[in-house]
Amino acid sequence: MTELSPVLDRADQNLKKSLERLFELVRIKSISTDPAYKADCRQAAEWLVSTLTEIGFDASVRDTTGHPMVVAHHAGATPDAPHVLFYGHYDVQPVDPVELWENDPFAPAIKDLGAGRKVITGRGTADDKGQLMTFVEACRAYKDVHGSLPVRVTILFEGEEESGSPSLKPFLEANAAELTASCALVCDTGMWDGETPAIAAALRGLVGEEITITAADRDLHSGLFGGAAANPIHILTEILAGLRDETGRITLDGFYDGVEETPANIKASWETLGRDAESFLGEVGLSVPSGEKGRSVLELTWARPTCEVNGIWGGYTGEGFKTVIAAKASAKISFRLVGEQDPAKVRDAFRAYVRSRIPADCTVDFHEHGGSPAIQLSYDSPVLTKAKNALSDEWEKPAVVVGMGGSIPIVGDFQKMLGMDSLLVGFGLVDDRIHSPNEKYDLKSFHKGIRSWARIMAAL
Amino acid sequence: MTELSPVLDRADQNLKKSLERLFELVRIKSISTDPAYKADCRQAAEWLVSTLTEIGFDASVRDTTGHPMVVAHHAGATPDAPHVLFYGHYDVQPVDPVELWENDPFAPAIKDLGAGRKVITGRGTADDKGQLMTFVEACRAYKDVHGSLPVRVTILFEGEEESGSPSLKPFLEANAAELTASCALVCDTGMWDGETPAIAAALRGLVGEEITITAADRDLHSGLFGGAAANPIHILTEILAGLRDETGRITLDGFYDGVEETPANIKASWETLGRDAESFLGEVGLSVPSGEKGRSVLELTWARPTCEVNGIWGGYTGEGFKTVIAAKASAKISFRLVGEQDPAKVRDAFRAYVRSRIPADCTVDFHEHGGSPAIQLSYDSPVLTKAKNALSDEWEKPAVVVGMGGSIPIVGDFQKMLGMDSLLVGFGLVDDRIHSPNEKYDLKSFHKGIRSWARIMAAL
Repeated sequence: MTELSPVLDRADQNLKKSLERLFELVRIKSISTDPAYKADCRQAAEWLVSTLTEIGFDASVRDTTGHPMVVAHHAGATPDAPHVLFYGHYDVQPVDPVELWENDPFAPAIKDLGAGRKVITGRGTADDKGQLMTFVEACRAYKDVHGSLPVRVTILFEGEEESGSPSLKPFLEANAAELTASCALVCDTGMWDGETPAIAAALRGLVGEEITITAADRDLHSGLFGGAAANPIHILTEILAGLRDETGRITLDGFYDGVEETPANIKASWETLGRDAESFLGEVGLSVPSGEKGRSVLELTWARPTCEVNGIWGGYTGEGFKTVIAAKASAKISFRLVGEQDPAKVRDAFRAYVRSRIPADCTVDFHEHGGSPAIQLSYDSPVLTKAKNALSDEWEKPAVVVGMGGSIPIVGDFQKMLGMDSLLVGFGLVDDRIHSPNEKYDLKSFHKGIRSWARIMAAL
Repeated sequence: MTELSPVLDRADQNLKKSLERLFELVRIKSISTDPAYKADCRQAAEWLVSTLTEIGFDASVRDTTGHPMVVAHHAGATPDAPHVLFYGHYDVQPVDPVELWENDPFAPAIKDLGAGRKVITGRGTADDKGQLMTFVEACRAYKDVHGSLPVRVTILFEGEEESGSPSLKPFLEANAAELTASCALVCDTGMWDGETPAIAAALRGLVGEEITITAADRDLHSGLFGGAAANPIHILTEILAGLRDETGRITLDGFYDGVEETPANIKASWETLGRDAESFLGEVGLSVPSGEKGRSVLELTWARPTCEVNGIWGGYTGEGFKTVIAAKASAKISFRLVGEQDPAKVRDAFRAYVRSRIPADCTVDFHEHGGSPAIQLSYDSPVLTKAKNALSDEWEKPAVVVGMGGSIPIVGDFQKMLGMDSLLVGFGLVDDRIHSPNEKYDLKSFHKGIRSWARIMAAL
């Protein structure tokens, strides 16, 4: 194994130049959702190719029907070195409302917040240009010291992550052999807090459904028909209320098939994080955990499936009052999935349950709003364990393995299409304001992020 | 008692002229909701005063802060004759959309529908100008034949019924002595069918409530918070679903206090009307009675209290899907009341029930949307029995005593403010299209309506 310590020193020495390079990238207005910035997106891709080429990558801009991909390859120090695919995205969110920015979003700068905290301001500093550059600069430090990288590296940068990644799947499919590695490194997530790095190992899946219940063939007057005619809002509320029992468990047949208990040691590590119901819910004005009884808020949001009604409407909703019995009532419902829950089976169980509760003279229409399984990575794979130790060596506090309440589609795509698990490591902080005005990335995240990747590459 | 049969003959002879007078009244555009027709409303009031004066009433236009009232008095044939107050309204609904009218709404005409059926077309023919004129023309026929009326009559016509009757209560209060009679005759309801007259003896009351449940202090992402944060839509659906048990009974504490079973003979008479669930609900595309089990649709809509959700809304209700946990969810709920149910107690019980189901970290706001008790008139009072017999003599089929699902506020006001029960008799038919384009009133309703009032006056 090549020596790590001079690489870390080199990363420290490089920092000023690393920042200058990040600033160059941030200045490019690569807003993927707005066609006016199409050329900027290409410019960002070309800038990355040129930067990677400079470090010794075999890098190229790869056209798609949308914004281009960047693909780059670098050999490892030895022919049998593990092969990793590093993923990031160079596109950024729009900057509206621009008048809320304290600094020009495309003129990055260092801002001193006092108490030793400095941040890099600008659109994309945290999401995801600053993050992907931690890896690129880690590679540079390694090359500077050792002339090679400890692992074989393939890089994939996309330019459409903020606009739904329409080109990604076709690109993965067309270039599967080239992009498949032993594992993927995805740098688009955050730290637990400013001192505690995190690896995300569980991402919940999602099933979205919309239902519309139709009763009478027109709106009815409740004076004339109330008490005798079916009210679709009643039917809907009974159906929705029946989805959960008194303990907060979801009542659908077979819903918990494929849901495993989280390992005790992982749950124990979550207990130490100090994120109790009070602190977690207190931020949004709540205090009492909803959902399944007897589980912590971290378990509820990271490792347990849920059912949420995301929208409901029916009848008269304007000012004043109208004694109407509506003809129709609707709701949008989503299920967050964990473990091996099958989205198709959950959808079927939901529909069967709803149908079983519709009176004979009423009807129900279903509209599907997407479905994706959960991603459950092994909590104790060698890759995760090595990365966890490497991160723990770099930061003030040991790394924690966490879950994420939502999904990151790329991780599922890598798993399904390339048969490859991902290691989700990132250095964002909760106050980075990604997608909002005044986005920033902590200078410490950038600096220690570079060092972290150097350590992880060495460990792998 | 004065002889009735020549009065009925006279009503028949007068019919052509009676119609001409009704047409004169219908031509006056007395739309009370539109300030542009203020002068027309006064003109209708003045026309009525002049018509009543012609028949021998002591009639006057009485100013209010809105449209004027018409009050008229006529002595009875003997000093000890019963005193009745007849109520009707001369104002009409707007005519929009006017392009849907087959005839000019203010150019009344006789239209032959074939099979011996003729109707009078025009706005207000059924609601309520045609109806109130049945009584006026009955008085005229009586006066023509006997020179007097068999009962002492006070008439009250208002011009704001279609705009919420804002002046009515102050007017009743200010003129209580002048307007109080032994009973009120209210002609603003309908027949059971074209051959069967009806007297309405039970009118359901109403309690309207709007609730808004607030959970978090902002909308939340269901990926981050789903499973741990309270979802106000869930809370709302559980509350609403819990308002009724499996038998359709409303679960609020003390809700059925003051609800009496309908007398067996009345229920039996309803059974004979042939209005089963299939025919009643079939008209609107339904077939299965909702609400309390084991009761007929007529009992459910006329004699039983209900709870209906009239509107519900919360979360994301637009196109597509948003995995949001809403901060707020709302619903509008109404209770129809019967018998002696107390609106204030029902409202209190509802609010106590809702509060008991709100989690400690959520809040609920209540907004009141009116409340009125049910009107339950005696099913076997002498006045009702006499009127029932008189109507049965006039029409092809015996009169039925019915309930009404909705309320008629004036009946409650007469009861509360003047201590006077009402007799609700009217000759409208379900296809009269009141409040809609192409309103009509059957010529038979008008003709036999006049004869009916002559018979009722004689019977009283």
